[in-house]
Amino acid sequence: MKEFLLLTPGPTSVPERVREATALPMIHHRTKDYQAILERVNANLSKAFFTRHPVMTFASSGTGAMEASVTNLLSQGDTVISYSAGKWGERYRDIARAYGLNVISREKTYGEAVTPAEVSEALKAAPAAKAVLVTLCETSTAVMHPVRSIAAVTRNSGALLLVDAISGLACDELRMDEWGVDAIVCGSQKGLMLPPGLSFVALNERAQAAIAASRLPKYYFNFAATLKVQAKNDTPFTPAVSLVRGLDEALAMLLEEGMENVWKRHREVAAWVRARVQEMGLALFAQAPSSGLTAIQMPAGIESGAVIKHMRDAHRVIMADGQGELKGRIVRFAHMGAACTMKDAKTGLSAFTDAMSKVGYAAV
Amino acid sequence: MKEFLLLTPGPTSVPERVREATALPMIHHRTKDYQAILERVNANLSKAFFTRHPVMTFASSGTGAMEASVTNLLSQGDTVISYSAGKWGERYRDIARAYGLNVISREKTYGEAVTPAEVSEALKAAPAAKAVLVTLCETSTAVMHPVRSIAAVTRNSGALLLVDAISGLACDELRMDEWGVDAIVCGSQKGLMLPPGLSFVALNERAQAAIAASRLPKYYFNFAATLKVQAKNDTPFTPAVSLVRGLDEALAMLLEEGMENVWKRHREVAAWVRARVQEMGLALFAQAPSSGLTAIQMPAGIESGAVIKHMRDAHRVIMADGQGELKGRIVRFAHMGAACTMKDAKTGLSAFTDAMSKVGYAAV
Repeated sequence: MKEFLLLTPGPTSVPERVREATALPMIHHRTKDYQAILERVNANLSKAFFTRHPVMTFASSGTGAMEASVTNLLSQGDTVISYSAGKWGERYRDIARAYGLNVISREKTYGEAVTPAEVSEALKAAPAAKAVLVTLCETSTAVMHPVRSIAAVTRNSGALLLVDAISGLACDELRMDEWGVDAIVCGSQKGLMLPPGLSFVALNERAQAAIAASRLPKYYFNFAATLKVQAKNDTPFTPAVSLVRGLDEALAMLLEEGMENVWKRHREVAAWVRARVQEMGLALFAQAPSSGLTAIQMPAGIESGAVIKHMRDAHRVIMADGQGELKGRIVRFAHMGAACTMKDAKTGLSAFTDAMSKVGYAAV
Repeated sequence: MKEFLLLTPGPTSVPERVREATALPMIHHRTKDYQAILERVNANLSKAFFTRHPVMTFASSGTGAMEASVTNLLSQGDTVISYSAGKWGERYRDIARAYGLNVISREKTYGEAVTPAEVSEALKAAPAAKAVLVTLCETSTAVMHPVRSIAAVTRNSGALLLVDAISGLACDELRMDEWGVDAIVCGSQKGLMLPPGLSFVALNERAQAAIAASRLPKYYFNFAATLKVQAKNDTPFTPAVSLVRGLDEALAMLLEEGMENVWKRHREVAAWVRARVQEMGLALFAQAPSSGLTAIQMPAGIESGAVIKHMRDAHRVIMADGQGELKGRIVRFAHMGAACTMKDAKTGLSAFTDAMSKVGYAAV
């Protein structure tokens, strides 16, 4: 199998240093050697999440951690306000519904961003709401929701702010404690430059205090049990040892570069890609985009699937089609994680330009 | 960090061929290349589980899949009969209780095995029971419960047989379809010779038919959604791509050797270890042991912790202490997965013999 350049919004490419760490001989997780790794990983995760609180690591996809944030912090019948403007916001909403919460679903047009004013209004209209569910990077549309200003509204309310930052963290600025975000959910295969298989949840004091009141059943994803043993550098269940060793390397790489520099690199590459795409006469789908990916609207008569197929077959570059109602209508050009470099962006743009020309698009 | 010889009942050592596969450059999971891997993995999983039915793979530890077997096949208030004679049977019971099932808990003395006669009696006493929960290899005591003869009792009853084979599969004989086992739960880091992080669930027709009646909430672990897309070589959520590529290699290794030969290798190594341990005048804890590990009773005055520490520090051999009430009382000498070879068993025995002598034990 020949190698492809992965310019998809997850899984992103995994640096060789990280891949090698995942392939080290197995060690047992109840040993001092592993505890030392876990202690360092946990400290570095808190730095990457900009929190002094613990960040829990689970063996699961990001969806598992989204579910866990609902089942551990809320109860059946609780009112929550869920914002969706794409597939990932809808997933958070659907999880809350699956557990019998009273979900006030605010569904916005794909491509739009949630505004702090509407969160404020919604909280006034539903003062008993226990939580607001929102997405940092809505990867299906490339929109970044303004979590910082939303948190300014929620942090002095009775509602927790739960943020799905699965594909936003380590791409877009996110300062948990300073902004007053109560819970952050993340996944491994995006900005964290790891293979899929790990998920993360960080909780501040307010969110930790909510655990005791939650009445939903849970076992594998159990925040109380996890936090208790995490304080002793242990895990309640067998951790995904090889992926955690990769995480150790990936966090070292991110912190060596500095998180602010990582965000800056994403902003710069994103700006370059967007300028070139607009120079081609093409429109961007999102008005307030995440730095992790660019969603490019296809002109009338051009199906994104044909463009993506040509990039893959002729250039071995993999980009993503739209999801749900956007399938066929946008190309998602990711510049996320280790693939967020000018070199990879140029390779991607060159493949994209050629593919657009092959499907009959004449740049203006 | 110097290498250790892992003779623990999970994680077991991972063959280099498997480790290298997990470290290959990342590929995207919605591509034909990945679908081809998944198609082969799914076919080979069914062979390893001795079933014509699909085997689902989840990114989680084995506990997640145990929980999933409860939340997808049963409902709150359902009566189930749970057998425990060690820590892992207790976990299955505790999961069923956490979800509000009516659990008839049959707790046996550690070291004993469940008998088919008692399962038959229990089903007569509780004819409405929807399921029997049992463990194949009770790793905390090294006992193998007689799943084949238990299935002979359950398969013509109204109750499903759910088997936790997390550490038994690919060590001990287990023929799902021929024996009439309804659901098998497994984990990656035992007989399957992988890092931890994947779990598996196989369901026969009876178990698949139970999905529709289940009323417990679930989202990440969803059998109906998984089976539906698995038929198209897809997964509902992002799979743990690197571990699945390792699984592809591990299954190839197991099937090249032949599952019957894998079981035979485990039986032979186990018999050799047990004969040597008994020649030292030591007693085995389990009367009907799994072939995956040997639980060695410590004589009066000897703490297993000291023996294990000496093996680790002087020989770089890692064995496991007892769990729960057996902590300090037994040494668990695993010969499981890739470490189930005469060479590793001899290294382990040599370390064990030296350690026993160092703590003052004079072999008879």
